Amino acid sequence: MIHRLRTPSLLSASSLSKEEVEFLFRAAHLFLEAFQRNEIPPLLVGKTISQLFFENSTRTRLAFETAIRKLGGAALTFTPNNSSLAKGESLLDTLKNLEALKPDAFIVRHSASGAALHLSRFTSRPIINAGDGTHEHPSQALLDAFTLEKKWGRFEGKTIVIVGDILHSRVARSNTRLLRTLGAHVIHCGPASLVPPLSSNLGAHEVTHSLDQVLDKADAVLCLRIQRERQNSPVIPSLSEFAHGYGLTAARAQRLKKDAWILHPGPVNRGVEITPEVADGARSLILEQVTHGVAMRMAILSALLNPGGLWRFLNPTSDINPIERTL
Amino acid sequence: MIHRLRTPSLLSASSLSKEEVEFLFRAAHLFLEAFQRNEIPPLLVGKTISQLFFENSTRTRLAFETAIRKLGGAALTFTPNNSSLAKGESLLDTLKNLEALKPDAFIVRHSASGAALHLSRFTSRPIINAGDGTHEHPSQALLDAFTLEKKWGRFEGKTIVIVGDILHSRVARSNTRLLRTLGAHVIHCGPASLVPPLSSNLGAHEVTHSLDQVLDKADAVLCLRIQRERQNSPVIPSLSEFAHGYGLTAARAQRLKKDAWILHPGPVNRGVEITPEVADGARSLILEQVTHGVAMRMAILSALLNPGGLWRFLNPTSDINPIERTL
Amino acid sequence: MIHRLRTPSLLSASSLSKEEVEFLFRAAHLFLEAFQRNEIPPLLVGKTISQLFFENSTRTRLAFETAIRKLGGAALTFTPNNSSLAKGESLLDTLKNLEALKPDAFIVRHSASGAALHLSRFTSRPIINAGDGTHEHPSQALLDAFTLEKKWGRFEGKTIVIVGDILHSRVARSNTRLLRTLGAHVIHCGPASLVPPLSSNLGAHEVTHSLDQVLDKADAVLCLRIQRERQNSPVIPSLSEFAHGYGLTAARAQRLKKDAWILHPGPVNRGVEITPEVADGARSLILEQVTHGVAMRMAILSALLNPGGLWRFLNPTSDINPIERTL
Repeated sequence: MIHRLRTPSLLSASSLSKEEVEFLFRAAHLFLEAFQRNEIPPLLVGKTISQLFFENSTRTRLAFETAIRKLGGAALTFTPNNSSLAKGESLLDTLKNLEALKPDAFIVRHSASGAALHLSRFTSRPIINAGDGTHEHPSQALLDAFTLEKKWGRFEGKTIVIVGDILHSRVARSNTRLLRTLGAHVIHCGPASLVPPLSSNLGAHEVTHSLDQVLDKADAVLCLRIQRERQNSPVIPSLSEFAHGYGLTAARAQRLKKDAWILHPGPVNRGVEITPEVADGARSLILEQVTHGVAMRMAILSALLNPGGLWRFLNPTSDINPIERTL
Repeated sequence: MIHRLRTPSLLSASSLSKEEVEFLFRAAHLFLEAFQRNEIPPLLVGKTISQLFFENSTRTRLAFETAIRKLGGAALTFTPNNSSLAKGESLLDTLKNLEALKPDAFIVRHSASGAALHLSRFTSRPIINAGDGTHEHPSQALLDAFTLEKKWGRFEGKTIVIVGDILHSRVARSNTRLLRTLGAHVIHCGPASLVPPLSSNLGAHEVTHSLDQVLDKADAVLCLRIQRERQNSPVIPSLSEFAHGYGLTAARAQRLKKDAWILHPGPVNRGVEITPEVADGARSLILEQVTHGVAMRMAILSALLNPGGLWRFLNPTSDINPIERTL
Repeated sequence: MIHRLRTPSLLSASSLSKEEVEFLFRAAHLFLEAFQRNEIPPLLVGKTISQLFFENSTRTRLAFETAIRKLGGAALTFTPNNSSLAKGESLLDTLKNLEALKPDAFIVRHSASGAALHLSRFTSRPIINAGDGTHEHPSQALLDAFTLEKKWGRFEGKTIVIVGDILHSRVARSNTRLLRTLGAHVIHCGPASLVPPLSSNLGAHEVTHSLDQVLDKADAVLCLRIQRERQNSPVIPSLSEFAHGYGLTAARAQRLKKDAWILHPGPVNRGVEITPEVADGARSLILEQVTHGVAMRMAILSALLNPGGLWRFLNPTSDINPIERTL
């Protein structure tokens, strides 16, 4: 059993070992219980976390901020609108200047794939990738998998169908890799223009262009968000066409296994990826995902910034703290 | 004597009983004293309050935020600019997603009348209405009344003239109802296009289109803000025409009773609703209103989120806590 | 040895005595050590500081906010975009309304020279000038001088060359006056259109239009930021012309004394005021300036808002506290 992550940053889901993911699951379970009792341990007291959001975000930013504040830390948010980026400062200069304010970590979202990794080469502070272009969104994949783990316990023998714009989705990339690491079977589903072939390195076990053909195989369906802003590009069909072929309607939901679950990273385009009655139905985990997102971010932040404190939280009755001995 | 509010949310001033308002006054008095001594009790420690401001606000948002922080709580502010509303998410989805972050309460401002009530039907968390369209702004009415209560002690026999765009004013609606509950006499004053008839359900005891005719009756004048953005609509006269007929000038202020008070919810259009020398004069309570707004928000937040703690604050020498026994 | 500042506000660098500056240096040294050990004393617990940023800022706002939070205080930030200034409220009304929320101090940035002084006449709260037009930016000058003081210990016999758009630079004004107070020799350097004559009251000891002629005299070069937005005005040459005559290139840096230091207040226009290899080189103090900026702001805030607590922090072993006796 491991006691900490191997790397100081969380840049991708694909670099996590199964043991690391299970360690984060264990922590997230306890944080979720503590969150519901409103008894979060103050593991980030005195820590300042710098949030760099170069792209819009509601839930990711607020989920991290809720986690940071509930753990007793301070979040300083930097968004390009009210910043010196408007004065022409480079991304790297921005990072170096924010780093000189001595935050304990960075949370970064950026429209360029590889931005988090790029920045991590120039700072000694931990970086948490909160989404980089079409590349990765590891905390989202961890919370999605955590939500399924709470239902299933284990992933062996489970099939997850990821539906939608796989090609442009960092959520699809991170989930596919993480679910494989955990032993699940992953199917990518969507129109040909949006689903890379099996031979790509996205890692799906199967690829299909027909949702109807795989509905009865799915233990969980993960609907991806259609980016409305891409609607007029040649690769994206019209929304109604997409909804007709790939929208999770009540009729399609009925053809799922009785105990299949439905996920969506939000924000939902109701009537496009998923119809309202399915989004709000009993098999939908959409809002649980959000709550679990706070617990998972608490696990990630504590694991990176206070592994000794996290160990004590996970092992309250133990006298020995293997982390603090080696720190 | 009551010890708490009857409802979990504060949606309107009109639904408050006289006992509830006096309970909030008592709490606000003590918070104001504690505020001035800088000894605010930490009644919101561990609480997170989600601020949803779909409309611009300076003083309301900052007054709530000051109250929350001074009480030891955390405020998470959500404004539509940097949010997924830009991505087309519905209001209700936004609420449900923010609720899944488990805030202890919502503070909501929205341009649609009824928005706070509507949202309260879909969440188990308390909602504080910080202004919904032309409907209600209960915390503003409570702080206005609290400001007068500090001067007068009681409202029986007092006449308040509310001047301006009554028709579009949530401040007028909430104040009218609250002042009636407290036993005051309320006169609505403004041009015919902006003042609903007596038979409307706004609840004024009198309606007049002549400020000059009611000046000598007023124990207090509450000037409303003219929305400059409505200026070119057919119902709103030009600003100079309005100022001529309804602006509280030095000449008009001189015709008030010697001990009459002047209020304005801000932000003031100097030279329109009120001239600078009156706004800054000895009878003006405009800045006291702002300070009292923090104390009143402390009272509201504590009453809704920590009634047991509020009881201890109000009754420091008592051994028995009737709230905590029944919780 | 003094124990506090003589004035309740920090409006300009030029009004500080040498003793006051040295007092702030002493405090900043200890805060910097405490910052690096992550053991900041909670000198601002219970204090609320209102940040009024009418102009864009990254590093100044975040440096103040980091200092405030690390010291245990709360920062409430007001920016005109999401405020009632959009509704036409005057600057002074905004101040009075924010003051009525009872913050313990204001931090103000504004595009008008004299704004901080102007506002200080209308509030009893301390004001920290975080930049007013082309006038002053005292906390920047204090952190710049502190950065040099850490290297040099003393300023007598030292020559600082300030290069660039002196005419429009509040950083140049504040630094020139502060460096003179400390006993340094100050040279202004730039094209004739951007450098006021010696007879102006900016206080330089020498003025030159040739950087190359003064390179070998400089113990430190302070490069100013060129405001790209002024580029098309008649007084500002093209960026490439400026870079050719006044940019600190590797070739020019080689002609500096071996132990000369290079400063820039940021954000840097790489390749204009300074080339990347010089900005990132061993003699560059640019990032140290940012870190020192947090420590200096801790010193300023503590000195103004909690002089007794600051005295205890500076004199941990003393039983007598001369400040608290006289408060």
